[in-house]
Amino acid sequence: MVETIQWTAAGVVMIDQTRLPRVQEFVTCRTYQDVAHAIVTMVIRGAPAIGVAAAMGIALGVQQADPARLDAEFETICSTLAATRPTAVNLFWAIDRMRKLYASLRGQPVAAIRARLIAEALAVYEEDIAINRAIGAHGAPLVPDGRTVLTHCNAGALATAGYGTALGVIRAAIEAGKSIDVFAGETRPFLQGARLTVWELQQDHIPVTLITDNMAGHFLKSGRIGCCVVGADRIARNGDVANKVGTYGVAVLAKENGVPFYVAAPISTLDLTLRSGDQIPIEQRPAEEVTEVFGVPVAPDNTAVENPAFDVTPNRYVAGIITEKGVAFPPYEESLPRLAAKE
Amino acid sequence: MVETIQWTAAGVVMIDQTRLPRVQEFVTCRTYQDVAHAIVTMVIRGAPAIGVAAAMGIALGVQQADPARLDAEFETICSTLAATRPTAVNLFWAIDRMRKLYASLRGQPVAAIRARLIAEALAVYEEDIAINRAIGAHGAPLVPDGRTVLTHCNAGALATAGYGTALGVIRAAIEAGKSIDVFAGETRPFLQGARLTVWELQQDHIPVTLITDNMAGHFLKSGRIGCCVVGADRIARNGDVANKVGTYGVAVLAKENGVPFYVAAPISTLDLTLRSGDQIPIEQRPAEEVTEVFGVPVAPDNTAVENPAFDVTPNRYVAGIITEKGVAFPPYEESLPRLAAKE
Repeated sequence: MVETIQWTAAGVVMIDQTRLPRVQEFVTCRTYQDVAHAIVTMVIRGAPAIGVAAAMGIALGVQQADPARLDAEFETICSTLAATRPTAVNLFWAIDRMRKLYASLRGQPVAAIRARLIAEALAVYEEDIAINRAIGAHGAPLVPDGRTVLTHCNAGALATAGYGTALGVIRAAIEAGKSIDVFAGETRPFLQGARLTVWELQQDHIPVTLITDNMAGHFLKSGRIGCCVVGADRIARNGDVANKVGTYGVAVLAKENGVPFYVAAPISTLDLTLRSGDQIPIEQRPAEEVTEVFGVPVAPDNTAVENPAFDVTPNRYVAGIITEKGVAFPPYEESLPRLAAKE
Repeated sequence: MVETIQWTAAGVVMIDQTRLPRVQEFVTCRTYQDVAHAIVTMVIRGAPAIGVAAAMGIALGVQQADPARLDAEFETICSTLAATRPTAVNLFWAIDRMRKLYASLRGQPVAAIRARLIAEALAVYEEDIAINRAIGAHGAPLVPDGRTVLTHCNAGALATAGYGTALGVIRAAIEAGKSIDVFAGETRPFLQGARLTVWELQQDHIPVTLITDNMAGHFLKSGRIGCCVVGADRIARNGDVANKVGTYGVAVLAKENGVPFYVAAPISTLDLTLRSGDQIPIEQRPAEEVTEVFGVPVAPDNTAVENPAFDVTPNRYVAGIITEKGVAFPPYEESLPRLAAKE
């Protein structure tokens, strides 16, 4: 399995997810600004992976910061990384975690602070893999044996430090001996399904069939799909889920056809400060993502475009939210805070 | 407005819809086999346009057929054209119309038969434009003023002899003084929305915004969309509608959000011989349409693909079916046969 992100002596190394699957190229971020740029341009994407990248970006920035102005530079590093993308809350969760640690280290020698921040970023990375394994273990029993699982976007190893959230559930179901295959929606405009999910599952020899996003309804109606599993970028206290645009459509079509729709995400994706999904900020991305595919124009010049990167799926369409601490079922206002508080 | 298809002395001339909007190139079909090939490869597409092409293809074939074996060659011409695409019933409707005329001309001089078949193909063409104008007139009152209309695929001038069915309703609403704009789903895999609908509406200075198909739910939920209008490739007696894949998803999401979903199609799209949409054959198209965009690969090599070109929207999601004879409302088992029988 390819490494999504790694801390190295040369800097933070990421596989360039804008070029997969045709080109497997690694990018070395040598400054925290490089890391921020990689997040903005989606060299790395996926809520948990963005969280890891932010933690590593902060650690990297602090290594290079002027010891005489460390506090000010730390703030600049954090605010630069926080300004990259608005929707995935894991980004802010990771920054907050690094910020709290930094505050606790006040007065210690710079060398010690630097070492501790590296160790914390590596801990975020390692914990993410363990979290995904736990999500997989909790989710695997929910996957119907002998059926097809529909997923949207990429909530796999490439969206995390490794193993994946939604694809982690699929991997765990297969490791548990279930005989399943996967339908992957291509996920326009950025094609994370076609480019990343298909590629990643093929690497693991998991049978996967590519469909365009607008075919999801046809196959949900056909009876072929046993369940849907997707990731999340932010989950409100009531269980409303922000995830890659198109998730809401899949969820409604699943419910309409009696197919359970599950969300797999770490507890760090919960934003218990938000009462509902209406409060989640939705990122608008550049028009060119819609009007061009790999630089090839697919629409007339000067076409007006809307490009919300995410949508919000109301909690009533979500059959369960699979976390590393267990599965939350409706009513989420009760189950999610309880799960989050669990040791 | 560009001409979709024309009968000329040199043959049947079509604008090449596989190359729009970047290249505006016309193809001259000099034989009925050329016409069949143009339908298969989607140089021309859209149920009513395919019907016109088939009528012209038959007329063209008969001009070149051996007078000594006219009956046999007529059958070959018809069966070749009938084998091009399975879902749009207008193709079979047009072939049937030409076949009945041919049968009625038995015993007449070959020159007379040839002239009458050309005249009939031109009548199919002219009638289609008039039909679309009538569809527009019946549909325009249904379009809420001051709101956005969502459409899928291209049911416009390019899908017909001119004016369009779904886009005809939009044109007629604007001609009636309504202030509306259009959201066009890009319509993967063939991108008829991005390439054809956006281009066609821009030519008429009708405000249009391009979205990916998976954004339809987001905007239907947002309250921005006043109604949906799409075309159809075949409508069963009970009002189940086969149309471009993704239509079913739009219809379910529209209903879920209280937005009326209308289908605009000529009576020739009705197949009263079918009890329900389950009986409509769904064409499977080549995998490359999904794995490549304008020849650029968007997925790993040897990716497994499903590519149904159409889906079936059950009648319960359809608020009305707009035809040249008026609007059918549920229950369609009663309203559709009544409308079809109307003079």
